[in-house]
Amino acid sequence: MDERVRDHARTLVDWSARIEAGDAVVVSVAEGAHDLAVAVAAELAARDADPVFTYASGEVARATLRNRESYTEDPAHELALYEGSDAVLHLGGGRNTAATADVPGDRRRASARATRGVREARLATRWVKTVHPTRSLAQEAGMAYEQYRDFVYGAVLRDWAALRAENARLKAVLDDGSTVRVVNEGTDVSMRIDGRTAVNSSASVVDDSHNLPSGEVFTAPHATEGEVTFGLPTVHSGTRIEDAWLRFEDGEVVAHDAARGAGALADLLDTDDGARRLGELGVGTNRGIDRTTGNLLFDEKMAGTVHLALGRAYDACLPPGEAGTDSAVHVDLITDMRGDSRLEVDGEVVQRNGTFRWEDGFEAGG
Amino acid sequence: MDERVRDHARTLVDWSARIEAGDAVVVSVAEGAHDLAVAVAAELAARDADPVFTYASGEVARATLRNRESYTEDPAHELALYEGSDAVLHLGGGRNTAATADVPGDRRRASARATRGVREARLATRWVKTVHPTRSLAQEAGMAYEQYRDFVYGAVLRDWAALRAENARLKAVLDDGSTVRVVNEGTDVSMRIDGRTAVNSSASVVDDSHNLPSGEVFTAPHATEGEVTFGLPTVHSGTRIEDAWLRFEDGEVVAHDAARGAGALADLLDTDDGARRLGELGVGTNRGIDRTTGNLLFDEKMAGTVHLALGRAYDACLPPGEAGTDSAVHVDLITDMRGDSRLEVDGEVVQRNGTFRWEDGFEAGG
Repeated sequence: MDERVRDHARTLVDWSARIEAGDAVVVSVAEGAHDLAVAVAAELAARDADPVFTYASGEVARATLRNRESYTEDPAHELALYEGSDAVLHLGGGRNTAATADVPGDRRRASARATRGVREARLATRWVKTVHPTRSLAQEAGMAYEQYRDFVYGAVLRDWAALRAENARLKAVLDDGSTVRVVNEGTDVSMRIDGRTAVNSSASVVDDSHNLPSGEVFTAPHATEGEVTFGLPTVHSGTRIEDAWLRFEDGEVVAHDAARGAGALADLLDTDDGARRLGELGVGTNRGIDRTTGNLLFDEKMAGTVHLALGRAYDACLPPGEAGTDSAVHVDLITDMRGDSRLEVDGEVVQRNGTFRWEDGFEAGG
Repeated sequence: MDERVRDHARTLVDWSARIEAGDAVVVSVAEGAHDLAVAVAAELAARDADPVFTYASGEVARATLRNRESYTEDPAHELALYEGSDAVLHLGGGRNTAATADVPGDRRRASARATRGVREARLATRWVKTVHPTRSLAQEAGMAYEQYRDFVYGAVLRDWAALRAENARLKAVLDDGSTVRVVNEGTDVSMRIDGRTAVNSSASVVDDSHNLPSGEVFTAPHATEGEVTFGLPTVHSGTRIEDAWLRFEDGEVVAHDAARGAGALADLLDTDDGARRLGELGVGTNRGIDRTTGNLLFDEKMAGTVHLALGRAYDACLPPGEAGTDSAVHVDLITDMRGDSRLEVDGEVVQRNGTFRWEDGFEAGG
């Protein structure tokens, strides 16, 4: 076995999920994630944790979704499994990113509605989402298999403690700040972040960070004004959206366009009221990620990018009792900050052309 | 998808497990059983049953068993999953029948001891064990892949209602009988079956039959006397036992031998007191199975064979309150009845040379 698979498993179990002896764990294994599952089994056993391995197959999901006419609300045996779990490790990596392409949207929504309790029980655990590199994901990324494996481990096997310390500087700036302004070609947008708390997302549940890889600092903005061009592509419900453009007034999208996927963008905005508002402002900080690969788990973490999510805000960013944007969706759109760009907090430049002010090469002037 | 995979799934869900709307189901998927899992998902969804798919990988099990030093007794989340389930469908079919060959026996036993409650919860459901044909199993059988697929579906896709009616005739004879005598070359053994109930094993949980394929009638004998030669091979804990020979006195093995695997046979007999006594007398009735393939799920069901199991008796064969043979093991050994042979109940020949007395070609004289 590639030693990096073992390192991945160790990082997942120790740094990300903080597994300890006696932890009840669910390990969800995608069709192509077998090797990582074997490595995770060894690490969990060495820590005396108790795993149940579930099979997360896109083709099995498709067969269920297409054939089910009515749903039981939160099946008791499934709910009991997750309610009794301390951690849930999602090992992604399928054999076909389009495995559920012919499942109608209403079928997906009916299933999602019926399993809300199960989902909440999962989200109440120390859950972590990661991905084992498969040929299918390499294809989606437009990469050779070996090249894609190098890419994934370059993003996953980082010095997370060091990145956490770096992220802490940006978090401090955002926590103290009141307004954020993002400027690049086609973008000049401002939003308020006063009273909101930034999350230091460094791939560990101790910081409310549930992705491996991670590498971002995010908060929940409001009162957004201005326009944004999203130069990097995103995929929403199987449709690729390229060069999306949004204009905000008083926190709400009032005009929109896209070079590709304009219809999907319009559908997204029509989901509900919250889908026309921002739920997240995120700043990517993972320098192991230097390109988009059609997988948001990686794309939104890319150093030198900022992403804005339409839809639901994360509770971790909100003061107790305050509701942020509520929506059935949360879709990240990414704007490139590596060219001529500025990220300002309360009028001060925090990042210019992708370089933070505490990094070498930062140009103070403008 | 091969239409036979769908037929297999339908037989499993309807005839074997008797799945109904709202049933909470666990589907355990072996490494090579993906296609059957997809077909089962479609059938369960069409019946509005609620499945949780678990991943039953030999390599994952090996990683756990080799790395675990101490065990939690019956992990609560796993126990809750099975205690909340109405049915458990085991879809076997791995990629390597020797996947756990280097796991020491004491490790296996420690794991088995720690999960007794989980196992009992599973056995309290409408559980069914079946197998998806894989290349690994074809190899074990010494068959080409296509040939093995034909073999498996020939055994699985039978007219089970008709076989159940046939089995009922043999069950009636055994239920009414007091002594059974089995005679073939190297075999002349008698045992008592009075007071015991035969199980009509026709692949349906309604008859306490939990294997697909099935095709046998079995009961729990006692007071065994005589000798048996087992001309067909069996595999116990990874070791092949060929041409085993046992002599019984007063229900207990008093002498034994084997052309191959004599050590494994001796170890088996030394497990505990029950391992030297019979727990089962079974008569194979599945005419779709015409050869042994190194997989007891099939081998013991072969028409024209009788199997005797050393070890634990099944409760379904015993009168309420009466204990049969108790043991940690239950290992089937198979004797061939297709040559010069007789199966007698209370002195009357019920089967001669593999043909039952109610079948065409039965020779009444001897």
